[in-house]
Amino acid sequence: MSESLLPRTIVEGESPEDLLRSWLAQQPHHQLAVVIDAAVNELHGEALRAAISGPVVWSVLPRGERHKVLHTCETLWGTWYDHSLDRRALVLAIGGGVTTDMAAFAASTWKRGIAFALMPTTLLAMVDAAIGGKTGVDFRSGKNLLGSFAQPEALLIAPQLLSTLPIRELRCGLAEMLKHGLLFDEAHWHELAALDLTASINWLPLIRRSLGLKTAIVEADPLEQGPRQLLNLGHTLGHAIESALLGTPAELLHGEAVAAGIYIEAQLAMRHAGLGREVAAEIESVLRRLGFKLELPRIDEAKLKTFLRQDKKNNLPKAGAVELSMVLLERIGQARYAVPVPEQEAIDVAVAHMTSTV
Amino acid sequence: MSESLLPRTIVEGESPEDLLRSWLAQQPHHQLAVVIDAAVNELHGEALRAAISGPVVWSVLPRGERHKVLHTCETLWGTWYDHSLDRRALVLAIGGGVTTDMAAFAASTWKRGIAFALMPTTLLAMVDAAIGGKTGVDFRSGKNLLGSFAQPEALLIAPQLLSTLPIRELRCGLAEMLKHGLLFDEAHWHELAALDLTASINWLPLIRRSLGLKTAIVEADPLEQGPRQLLNLGHTLGHAIESALLGTPAELLHGEAVAAGIYIEAQLAMRHAGLGREVAAEIESVLRRLGFKLELPRIDEAKLKTFLRQDKKNNLPKAGAVELSMVLLERIGQARYAVPVPEQEAIDVAVAHMTSTV
Repeated sequence: MSESLLPRTIVEGESPEDLLRSWLAQQPHHQLAVVIDAAVNELHGEALRAAISGPVVWSVLPRGERHKVLHTCETLWGTWYDHSLDRRALVLAIGGGVTTDMAAFAASTWKRGIAFALMPTTLLAMVDAAIGGKTGVDFRSGKNLLGSFAQPEALLIAPQLLSTLPIRELRCGLAEMLKHGLLFDEAHWHELAALDLTASINWLPLIRRSLGLKTAIVEADPLEQGPRQLLNLGHTLGHAIESALLGTPAELLHGEAVAAGIYIEAQLAMRHAGLGREVAAEIESVLRRLGFKLELPRIDEAKLKTFLRQDKKNNLPKAGAVELSMVLLERIGQARYAVPVPEQEAIDVAVAHMTSTV
Repeated sequence: MSESLLPRTIVEGESPEDLLRSWLAQQPHHQLAVVIDAAVNELHGEALRAAISGPVVWSVLPRGERHKVLHTCETLWGTWYDHSLDRRALVLAIGGGVTTDMAAFAASTWKRGIAFALMPTTLLAMVDAAIGGKTGVDFRSGKNLLGSFAQPEALLIAPQLLSTLPIRELRCGLAEMLKHGLLFDEAHWHELAALDLTASINWLPLIRRSLGLKTAIVEADPLEQGPRQLLNLGHTLGHAIESALLGTPAELLHGEAVAAGIYIEAQLAMRHAGLGREVAAEIESVLRRLGFKLELPRIDEAKLKTFLRQDKKNNLPKAGAVELSMVLLERIGQARYAVPVPEQEAIDVAVAHMTSTV
């Protein structure tokens, strides 16, 4: 119901405990409910709990995308029910995108919406999931099919949390940051392309820049009726691939699937948006250098089609040829959205890039 | 996310089929999903279906408050999933408040919100549930604990539907209309007080007036941060009584519980808001003349307390004395909101009015 979907405030601080302590001291909430990812709770739960004075309703969520479902929300709502969480309560989500999306959805529908704040613990959630007001849980095999638009009270960014993050997770966040660079900011693309993930990195300025790019586009088009669709670069195929591989031995993390999507969609961009062949090659080489695996296992065409058709921004599949609505790069720093691409062509290009066998 | 919660448009017409046909002809939707109450479907489904040209995803919801739960929404979402309902689809809810609240909640969370319109089939839903942008389902024993604020595309009012409505259901709608009169409009109170429910009634002007009163207050305070709370007159005790009796042989319909709530709360208003004894007596006599049963079965005090504490607008129960935040009448046409009343006093007055045994 608010006019903006951006967090009312963004606060930064290297240490999550200090940040939490100082921020909470300024909040007028009278009940606090923390929703925290199980693995994060294991690593940081005790220290974070110690940074909070007063009572807390503490819910630990099972880790992983397969728990991002209504059933998990029901458990959460049950706990809130048992503790009579009322309309003036504050929910604080601590975890990756699965946790922040789901806790935000649960908060935005509890008693028709209570205040919530997000402390993302992954790079991906810091630069992407936590900005934009999208909440959601998966339904059947559709990602985020249930959800809402809701504005967080605050976004708490504590890069120290990244020091315990596996490199594979860091790479996932990087995929979305690279996407921001590709879409809007060539310099950002180049600074990210030069990173060495095995070395120590000063993340804060990079996060700030990526976050700023996403913020600007969300502000311009909160409800994704126009240019915000650009943020789906790499996601049309990325989502479908991610969904198709979910639960298989070749399961990908979201950012990994997006990187594969960016790579395959660049091939389509050469045909439909005039992307230069050498630029597509540069994108491929940067992604490979950063450690993204671009060889996909063979996915059944029919399965891929099913998941492509679940894309929330598609037009209704009609009898006969179906068109996907895609975001395609024109050059680095510039893209087009709502580009119609025949579904079969996208599938053919994707399948052509599936070289490995599981 | 819109700034208003009122329906974008209200259209009226005696015949529901004609109204539906003419309204749908002007809509740009490309997929239509109807959500209809089982009993309404039995009576009017065929005629309404015939008024719609083109394909429809038709979902029949089981009747009754006990089905106003997430599980029913999951069935609905499952049907929408099977039919690949996309973001440009339109959901049309046809039924009483249970159906319209639930279908609106399901639509407002499907793919983060798709358009929905409401065709209420009960007097209660026409004058109350369908106006105000509140959607919801019950959770555990709390009414509407899960929900959202969302703006309907349209409200379709077809009073002909009331001709098949049992008198008990008409009376329920009347309870909310009487409430609007008591709160804001003495003349409306008097015209309703004079009705004979066994005779034929020209409902349209009465509905229009009641709807207008509710519309004005929702417009002034969409998110219930101030004067919209007035609409909870009769509901603090009414809701608790309704919840406590749910599933017992003495189960009340919502409007019946609200009428009982208005009656009991008038006793509290004499003490806390200066309501005249003769006015309280007038309220009681009008309610009785219209056929409301004001004698309640004996409800366990602890049970009543549990449900009172689930009231979404209460302050957090603290150790010791709990205060309810109530709406109390000063005179007919004028009330106060957020009046603190000791919980125990409200319970005592309620219990004093429980004279019958189940």
